[in-house]
Parts: sequence; structure tokens; C-alpha cells
Amino acid sequence: MAYRSAIVRRAQEASHRDTWRAALSEFISTLIFVFAGSGSSVAVNKLTVDKPSALVVAAVAHAFALFVAVSVSTNISGGHVNPAVTFGAFVGGNLTLLRCVLFWIAQILGSVIACLLLKFITGGQDVPVFKLSSGVGVGNAVVLEMVMTFGLVYTVYATTVDPRSRRGSLGVMAPIVIGFIVGANVLVGGPFDGASMNPAASFGPAVVGWSWKNHWVYWVGPLVGGGLAGFMYELIFVSHSRQRFRRSYY
Amino acid sequence: MAYRSAIVRRAQEASHRDTWRAALSEFISTLIFVFAGSGSSVAVNKLTVDKPSALVVAAVAHAFALFVAVSVSTNISGGHVNPAVTFGAFVGGNLTLLRCVLFWIAQILGSVIACLLLKFITGGQDVPVFKLSSGVGVGNAVVLEMVMTFGLVYTVYATTVDPRSRRGSLGVMAPIVIGFIVGANVLVGGPFDGASMNPAASFGPAVVGWSWKNHWVYWVGPLVGGGLAGFMYELIFVSHSRQRFRRSYY
Amino acid sequence: MAYRSAIVRRAQEASHRDTWRAALSEFISTLIFVFAGSGSSVAVNKLTVDKPSALVVAAVAHAFALFVAVSVSTNISGGHVNPAVTFGAFVGGNLTLLRCVLFWIAQILGSVIACLLLKFITGGQDVPVFKLSSGVGVGNAVVLEMVMTFGLVYTVYATTVDPRSRRGSLGVMAPIVIGFIVGANVLVGGPFDGASMNPAASFGPAVVGWSWKNHWVYWVGPLVGGGLAGFMYELIFVSHSRQRFRRSYY
Amino acid sequence: MAYRSAIVRRAQEASHRDTWRAALSEFISTLIFVFAGSGSSVAVNKLTVDKPSALVVAAVAHAFALFVAVSVSTNISGGHVNPAVTFGAFVGGNLTLLRCVLFWIAQILGSVIACLLLKFITGGQDVPVFKLSSGVGVGNAVVLEMVMTFGLVYTVYATTVDPRSRRGSLGVMAPIVIGFIVGANVLVGGPFDGASMNPAASFGPAVVGWSWKNHWVYWVGPLVGGGLAGFMYELIFVSHSRQRFRRSYY
Repeated sequence: MAYRSAIVRRAQEASHRDTWRAALSEFISTLIFVFAGSGSSVAVNKLTVDKPSALVVAAVAHAFALFVAVSVSTNISGGHVNPAVTFGAFVGGNLTLLRCVLFWIAQILGSVIACLLLKFITGGQDVPVFKLSSGVGVGNAVVLEMVMTFGLVYTVYATTVDPRSRRGSLGVMAPIVIGFIVGANVLVGGPFDGASMNPAASFGPAVVGWSWKNHWVYWVGPLVGGGLAGFMYELIFVSHSRQRFRRSYY
Repeated sequence: MAYRSAIVRRAQEASHRDTWRAALSEFISTLIFVFAGSGSSVAVNKLTVDKPSALVVAAVAHAFALFVAVSVSTNISGGHVNPAVTFGAFVGGNLTLLRCVLFWIAQILGSVIACLLLKFITGGQDVPVFKLSSGVGVGNAVVLEMVMTFGLVYTVYATTVDPRSRRGSLGVMAPIVIGFIVGANVLVGGPFDGASMNPAASFGPAVVGWSWKNHWVYWVGPLVGGGLAGFMYELIFVSHSRQRFRRSYY
Repeated sequence: MAYRSAIVRRAQEASHRDTWRAALSEFISTLIFVFAGSGSSVAVNKLTVDKPSALVVAAVAHAFALFVAVSVSTNISGGHVNPAVTFGAFVGGNLTLLRCVLFWIAQILGSVIACLLLKFITGGQDVPVFKLSSGVGVGNAVVLEMVMTFGLVYTVYATTVDPRSRRGSLGVMAPIVIGFIVGANVLVGGPFDGASMNPAASFGPAVVGWSWKNHWVYWVGPLVGGGLAGFMYELIFVSHSRQRFRRSYY
Repeated sequence: MAYRSAIVRRAQEASHRDTWRAALSEFISTLIFVFAGSGSSVAVNKLTVDKPSALVVAAVAHAFALFVAVSVSTNISGGHVNPAVTFGAFVGGNLTLLRCVLFWIAQILGSVIACLLLKFITGGQDVPVFKLSSGVGVGNAVVLEMVMTFGLVYTVYATTVDPRSRRGSLGVMAPIVIGFIVGANVLVGGPFDGASMNPAASFGPAVVGWSWKNHWVYWVGPLVGGGLAGFMYELIFVSHSRQRFRRSYY
């Protein structure tokens, strides 16, 4: 009895240590991602600005950096690097509430630290805040963030949660697919609202630049889009497929 | 007997559900692809236009987005995202007529919805229609679309249909190879006829902008090129290879 | 006896058919590669020219298209798409003379047909010929082509011929590694001599534009560099490794 | 006894030969990497300079070339191509001191030879030296190099040293992940201090251009950042995981 409860306690402790390690992994990954993503905007501002080239710089920086950030945390925390992805996983029933909260905190901290580092490193340059371009209303921007984040979380589900991918070959490519959907969407949404798809990535620059205008757009859009994608993918594509696999096992 | 026919009926229903799921998957994938592909053109129009950078933006957006769109639907529908690819698969005998028709409808709907979303999100900007540049006749454009789509469907066959790839390691890379052949071809054909290779991708902007001049070029070129590639690859490289594998089994 | 010789004859015929199929595969792959590679230069010339963007266009077009061209022919012909790679494989003892000659013919034909197609499709635009920039002598250019092609064929050997890669995971990535070394080298050599690394890719535009000035540079540089890489890699890294594997088997 | 010591001697000799082969592999890989990385700057200088395009050229050249350089040496030497990575591996206890020293020499030689080749090939153009931009102090630059190299070596550990990656699928993608973190970081740090993250890559141009101002920044930053990442990753993520695997074996 005592022996057994000792094992249980040790297993719980190990599990807690794993959770903390996962949160640390999310922290470092989000730091790496936001450092490159927001950093590339700071870098372009340092140069003569030619807009379409700046768009390519932003897209490539986000695609490459998210690919890396997901890769280095995928085995430890699942590689979310984004509160909307964490929320989508939670809505689909693939994450406990405790992990969901810890991951959000880690992601937000990672983003804030990345922006502070950028500010120091560049000798005090501004880290650009996400904002709506002229002619783009909050309604447009919420739908834009919603559609883009739907695509992102749909992609995360299709390449990492779907049992067909986990056992198949698609899992190997998951981090690069996830990085590239964000890169592609930056090329669409960049000139309209900055194309965040990631509340943590918008939060860091907002804190460091202390600018909160329309900031709620970058939380509501991604969380609704990501939650919807998680709920829908789980319902239509995964639960059915899981049921079938279960049937073939028993 | 009754038991057996019940099983058959249930299997047929399951198969129908799978077909509908596959069509839904094609719908979402085409939506994701056209949203990024046509969306990147809308985005560049929002900025000061510097043509070669715009070309890089278009190529990267199409390559990244098609890679993602094929990845997320490959396990569910085979990842066509393109009526010409579906037609090539049909011609080579790798798809039933029912699926072919359903996929076409899903792809066309996905493209139209993507363009409507782009119109709303950007506060009413035009989604650029595919058209011939000055100095490019319809004959040139049909051959251009034909050659590029031949390359695309040849690539789809070599990386996903060919038995050597299915059992080997090439299958893992198939979605990125398919995305990148379209990216490379956009860099060639973009300045001449917009480099569609995909009737659905041309149809969405044509509906939303209600502009049908030379629209048939973007159906005839891709379908002839894709059909030819499917027929030829199946005849020369696949059927032979299948025959040999069969021989070694019996 | 008669039965046996019939089998031998049938095996020889099958082997001949395989050789022809491999040559056809090299033809189509080289056509796809040169169509995108030279085609992207034609496309940029159609637009206002901004040089560094044009350099990115050329690098991305070559990297993406070679990745695709190697992928689609890797299981059928080994995915050379380049007389210098074929020569490197021949020098290292990994190819018969017959295949070497047939592959060269197929690659050259593929390149010429690609350039003729480009000429027709664009309504008669010139396909840019590879040439030396001002300030670059033939000596510089030969060494440049030699060093770049050494890197390319060294990469081909390390990712496809080396037994460590064939049995390991590196083989999956071989086509993309090969495409990207050419993309990287285009970013270096492009402004100096066009960065060919591929005699067939230089030959097509030279025939169609009938311009042969310094054309020998694009044969001597790549063949010397590629042959050297094949010989050296085989000698230092492969033969040793094969010997060791053999030892462990017996 | 004599027999045994002969085996030991032969094993030692073989091991020495392996070490020399690994050093040669590091030499060639660093040559390939610096040739493309520094070479792309030389190439852009040859053209009209448009800064953000030049930034994309630098990022793509570094990402593609490092991906290739790591790929071709990964099976022979582990694919470091960078004294800071070698130092990080040494600090984490994954490399002998002898190999560490030999790799450093090979990497430095590879970089110097690459820069000499660039100088010859371009008919005597300057190879740009890494230097601080105006407004960037040495303190800023050391922290910038430290943060970026921390990210790089953290990525190397997560994708190649971590036992979870070695046995899983992440190992296949390791070279491309490593190449792309450097590409992403070039987009951030490029306009501020050139974004080296690699003492050998900074050393070659410094020797050939004989310019040593603030050169120590490009040694101290990367070595501190890389050493920290190696120590921390080993301590928090690897040793724990190794312990657990050991437990399950015995």
C-alpha cells in the first residue's frame, strides 16, 4: 500500500516535472519564434523600406522560425507556440486545463522576453505593434484572423492529431507544414492587419510598446477560428477515424 | 443473408460517408490554397508594386499554400486540390467518376468561397482575374498552361501514384514536391498568363470579378496537359512496374 | 538451356527497356528543370528589372525545379538531370558507359526542347544565354563553375551514393538537399557567370539563341569539378565505408 | 595478448582515420557554407543594392547552404560546420577534446579557403567583413550573437542530440531545421551586426580582408550562447530523458 502510493506520488511528481519541462519548452520556442518574427520587422525598419520585399522578409522569417520553434518543442510539449493552437487542442479534448493555462503563461512570457531582448539588442528601436491598415475595419480584421487561424489549427490537427498522420509519414513533415501555412498567410494578411494568428505574438509587442488599440481583435479572431477548427476537425475527421481504429483492435 | 446484406449496406454507407468527407477535405484544402494564392496578389496590390518582388511573393505563396493544402487532405481525399489533377487521376484509372465529379464541385466551391472571403476581409478590394499579358496569344497561353500542368500532374503521379514511391521514401516528400513544382512554374508563367495550372483557382476570381475573357484557356490547357500526363505516366512507368510487382508476388 | 537463354534474353530486353525508360525520365526531368530555370529569367526580363529580386527569383526557381526534377526521376533513372552529375557517377564507377551516353543525349534534348517551348510560349522572347559578366575572365569562370559543381556532385554522393545515407534517413531528403545547393550557388555565381553547374542547361539556350561565346567554359568547369568530386568522395568516404560493411557481413 | 593489442592498435588507427575523415568532412562543409554565405554578399554587391532584397538573398543563401553543409557531413562528423556548435557539443559532454580542436581547425581552414576562392573567382572583389552597424554597441552585438547562437545550438541539441529525436522522426529533418533557424536569425540580426552565429564564418573574411575591428564579438557571443545552450539542454531535457530510458532498459 505504502509502496504503491509512493510509486503513485513519484509518478505524479514526474508528471509535474514533465509539465514544467513542457511549459519551459513552450517558453523557449515562443521566444525563438517571436524573436525572429517581430525581429524581422525591426530589421526591415532599419533598412530603406521597399514594401513587397518587406512582405517576403516577414513571410520567410515567420515560416522558418515557426518551423524551427515547433520542431524543437514537438517532442517535449507538442509544439504549440501559440495560445490559439493550445486552445484548439483543449477544445478538441487533447489537453488538460492545467497544461492549457501553463502553456498560455509560458507563451506570453516567451513573447514578452523576446520583445525586450529585441529592444535592447537594437539599441532601443521600436518593436512594431500589430495594427489594422487604413480601410480595414475591426469586423474585417476579426474575420481575417479567424479564417487564417482556422487554416492554421486545421493544419495542426491534420498533421499531428489525426491518427492517420501520427502512424503515417505525414507526422515527420508536420512542423514544416505548420510553419509554411503561417508563412503563406502572412503573404495574404500582412498588409491588412499584420497577420498574427497568435495572441502571444501580438501581446509581446503591445506590452513593450504599450499600445492596446484594437488589441482584442488579435485574441478574439484567433481563439474563435482556432477553437472552431479544433472542434470541427475532431468531430468530423478524427472521432470517426478513432472509432474505426478502435473497432479493428477489439 | 440478411446479415450479409446489412454488412454490405453498412459498408456502402461508410464508403459514401468517406466520399463526402473526402469532398469536404478537398473543399477546405482548395479554400486554403486559393485564399493564400489569390490573396497574396490582393496583398501585393495593396502595397507599392515592384514587379519581380511581387513574382517572388506569388511563387512563395502558391508553393507554401499548395504544400499545406495537399498535406492536410492527402490522407483523406488524396490531396488533389485541383480539377486538372483529379482529371489526370481519372484518366489514369485511379478514381471513380462519382468522386471525380464531387471533387470538381468541392474544389470550385472552395475557390469561390475563398475569393468571397478575400473580398470581404480586405474591405472590398478586387481579386485579380487570370488574364493574358500583352503579346501573349491564346495559342501561346493554352500551350503554356498545358506544359506547366503536364509537369504538375507528372509530378503528382511520380510521387504519389507510382508504386515505387508509395512503398519508398518519396511519398513523405510528395506534398512539398507538388507545392514546389507549382511555385517554380509561377516564376515562369506568372508574367505571361498568371500561371494557373488549376481551373478551380481561375474560376473563383472569374466568378467574383465576373470577368470571363479567355477563361476557357484556363480549363482547356490544364485539362489537356494533366490528362496527357496521367495517361502517359500510367502507360509507360506505372503499368509496367505494377505488372512486374504482380509477377514477383505470384 | 534454351529455357535459360530465353530468360537471359528476356532479362536483357527488360534491362534495355529499363535503360530507355530511365533515359526518357532524364529527358522529362531536364525539360522540367530547364523550363523553370531558364523560364524564370525570361519571365524576369518581361518585368521591370530589379537585380537582387531577379537573383532571388533565379535561385528559388532553380532550387524548387531541380528538387522536383530529381524527385520525379530518382526512382527511375537515379535523378541526375545534369551531364556533370552523370559524369561524376560514371567516374566513381556507379554507372555504365551506355547509360552515361544515353543520359547525356536525353538531358541535352530535354534542355533544347524546353528552350524551344519557352520561345513559342512567350511569343518569341529570347531565352538568356549563359555568359561571363564584365570583369570576369574565362579563368575565373572555369574555377567558379568547377567549385560550384564540386559542391553539387559532392552533395549528390553524400546523400545518394554513400551507403550511410542509402540505409539511413538522409536518402529521403536527398532531392531537396540537391536542389538547395544549386539554389545557394546561384545566389553566389549568378551575377558573375550565370551559375550553370550543368552543361545541358547551358547548351539549350546556346542552341536556340545560337550563341557560343565561351560556351566551352560551361562544359569544362562542371565536368572537371563533378568528376573530381565523384572520384574523391568514392575514394575517401565510400570505398572505405563499403569495405567496412562488407567486413561486418562476412 | 599480442593479438589483442594488435586489434586495439588497429581499432585506434581506424578511429584516428575516422577522426581525420570527420575533420575533412567539416572542412569541406564549412567551405561550402561560407562560399555560399559570404559569396551571396559579394554577389549582391556586384548588383545595384536594394537592401531588403539583399536581406532575403543573405537569409536564403545561409539557410539553403547550411542545410546542405549539415546534410553532407552529418553521417561523417555530426554536421557541426561551426565552432560554436562544436563547443556546445563539447560542453554538453558529447565530444572529445581532440575532436573539438581538430574540428575548429578544419572549420577555420574551410572558411579561409572559401573566402580566398571567392576573391579569385570574382576577379578580386572584396569579401564583406562582419561589422556592427551605426547605433549598435559592442554590448548589444555580443548579446545579439549570444541569443541567436543560443537558439541555434538549442535547435541542434533538440533535433540531433536529444534521444527522443534520434529514435524518432525528427532526426530526418534536423539539417533543414538547423539551416532554417540560421536563415530566420539572419533576417533579424543581419542589419545590426551581420548575424554570424559562427566564429569560423566571421574569421575567413577577417583574414582575407585583414580587418579585425570588434572581431572578438563574433567569438565571445556565439561561444557563450552556444555553450549555455549545450549545458542547459543537456541538464534539463537530455540527462533526465537518458536516465529514464536507462531505467526502462534495466
